[in-house]
Amino acid sequence: MSMQSVTHAVNVRLGEDERSIVVLDQTLLPNETKYLTLTDRDAMWEAIYKLRVRGAPCIGIFAAYAMAVLAKGIEAADFDGFYAEYSALSQYLGSSRPTAVNLACMLRRMDGVVLAHRESPRQELLDALTAEAKAIHAEDMEMCRKISEYGLSLLKDGDGVITHCNAGPLATSRYGTAQGPFYLAKEKGMNIHVYVDETRPLLQGARLTSYELTRAGVPCTLICDNMASIVMKQGKVQAVFFGCDRIARNGDVANKIGSSGLAVLAHYYGIPVYSLGPSTTIDFHCPSGDDIPIEERPHSEIRELYYEKPMALPEVECYNPAFDVTDHSLLSGIVTERGIVRAPFEENFRKLFPEAMP
Amino acid sequence: MSMQSVTHAVNVRLGEDERSIVVLDQTLLPNETKYLTLTDRDAMWEAIYKLRVRGAPCIGIFAAYAMAVLAKGIEAADFDGFYAEYSALSQYLGSSRPTAVNLACMLRRMDGVVLAHRESPRQELLDALTAEAKAIHAEDMEMCRKISEYGLSLLKDGDGVITHCNAGPLATSRYGTAQGPFYLAKEKGMNIHVYVDETRPLLQGARLTSYELTRAGVPCTLICDNMASIVMKQGKVQAVFFGCDRIARNGDVANKIGSSGLAVLAHYYGIPVYSLGPSTTIDFHCPSGDDIPIEERPHSEIRELYYEKPMALPEVECYNPAFDVTDHSLLSGIVTERGIVRAPFEENFRKLFPEAMP
Repeated sequence: MSMQSVTHAVNVRLGEDERSIVVLDQTLLPNETKYLTLTDRDAMWEAIYKLRVRGAPCIGIFAAYAMAVLAKGIEAADFDGFYAEYSALSQYLGSSRPTAVNLACMLRRMDGVVLAHRESPRQELLDALTAEAKAIHAEDMEMCRKISEYGLSLLKDGDGVITHCNAGPLATSRYGTAQGPFYLAKEKGMNIHVYVDETRPLLQGARLTSYELTRAGVPCTLICDNMASIVMKQGKVQAVFFGCDRIARNGDVANKIGSSGLAVLAHYYGIPVYSLGPSTTIDFHCPSGDDIPIEERPHSEIRELYYEKPMALPEVECYNPAFDVTDHSLLSGIVTERGIVRAPFEENFRKLFPEAMP
Repeated sequence: MSMQSVTHAVNVRLGEDERSIVVLDQTLLPNETKYLTLTDRDAMWEAIYKLRVRGAPCIGIFAAYAMAVLAKGIEAADFDGFYAEYSALSQYLGSSRPTAVNLACMLRRMDGVVLAHRESPRQELLDALTAEAKAIHAEDMEMCRKISEYGLSLLKDGDGVITHCNAGPLATSRYGTAQGPFYLAKEKGMNIHVYVDETRPLLQGARLTSYELTRAGVPCTLICDNMASIVMKQGKVQAVFFGCDRIARNGDVANKIGSSGLAVLAHYYGIPVYSLGPSTTIDFHCPSGDDIPIEERPHSEIRELYYEKPMALPEVECYNPAFDVTDHSLLSGIVTERGIVRAPFEENFRKLFPEAMP
């Protein structure tokens, strides 16, 4: 598979009939490439919760399509009845991943479309929802391209970069965010070597990022999360790039568990750390990382290592936070589609996003 | 299984006939408890290399018994012929784990026994080797007890401690080193909560440490390596205890991969870090961590996650160092059977081990 086909792979799309969503089941990668056709709310909720569809931007696109599809099944007689059912469905989908702000953001955007069509005929409302979901998808591609360009401007030929989890094409609609610069570098003939944290417990780095990069011909080396310190000490990396699931107004970044540790290590070794993501990930109503809820996931994810044989006794206690918060003092910058924001973050967010700040 | 039985479990012993070694195959834990009876050099080398027997002190004991057993098979007519064969066997066993100084140290000690019996009848030499191996085993038990007592003196009731890899009863002959204080605390009725890093790639924390602690009734929580930062930030731990495979004269400590990252994180969060191990682990001839060879292990350990299904494409490049070096500047102390050594390490090693320093 060429790089071209990786960055153009479609992970999420509407079914032919526009009454279903077709998604690549990312839990089966890299061993199996299987697309699922989803038509009901429970299967859609489960697809997000079980990480079959994952990555903040990709979840947002998926949720938008999901609401466009589910709205078609609402049988209410009037708008109020329709909206009550729609809202319940939207809240239900939103409960699948509480940390990811992008999901909530896209659901809110779709909600706005419904409310703007209070007086419209039913079919017009449904068409507007489908059109909005497609627009969200298209905007995501453009956003990824811009983030990739800003991100790449921070690197020079021959650099090594360490990255965490998956924020590449699979997590978005194209290129990716935190890993987008690596695909763009490849297109431009720049030589960037990527060190990929495997990202326990669900191994998104091993299963998805190293898969995508290797298939695209981007030079990369897979390491266990606990090898980041030795790789940094040996001078192999000149930057840390990771994504974001929610950014607080003060610049604190919630991202996949392990990101904050990586940032602390980089700080110690004098290596700059960048979080890359769409501005929809910035939660302007959230003052700091202390206000971000951290999803805790099942202990079996640690104990059972994805497979049948247990790696620990069934009675062993586990702690399985899915995310952690990186303090803004550890970040050299936050890369968005409008540019690179540096400290003081709140002040500079205000300059770059004057319309969004409360 | 009670705590008593865990700390008295025998991982390595001579066979009844004293011509074999019986070892617990640690690679099968926690799912299967299987003892292997080893009689030839290749099986012994493989047992160390494949980590069936592991933990620096335990490898030392195993190697001593191994040489006592293998010596019985040497058919040379005179001492020089015997010693040539003996030396070749000793070098071969020593090549199985290049980083662990304890292995080399115990092989040297057994070598000294051979050389001291140049004029003795063959049977006397063989008996002396067996006696020496048993003495090494007994001394290890005493060493563990002392390290556990010194280690426990650094903790107070109610403390949380984060630990890495396995340096408990399975890695030694009893109690353990880095994890010995936790079993001793349990015996004394002290309440210490242990956070156990799973320790990728071979999961010694999940498979062995959380198994031993849980079986012994020591409160513990299993986490992925990349969760140490959030656990520290949340104030759950007041100390970091890990073992050591080789300590340089300046206090730099080589230990299981991930230890140095843990030390950097603890340093950032203001948490003290202790490395615990027998003084045989201190390599007085090694000036600093830069002089310690780091074993690199097969990529399949990362890619294949212990089991049949691959977690990454077969062509994905990996980097798999088995150890890293923690700079002495990050350590609050090194706990040995003679006491706790603090900075300046070289000066204080000289005081505590005047006979050993070159």
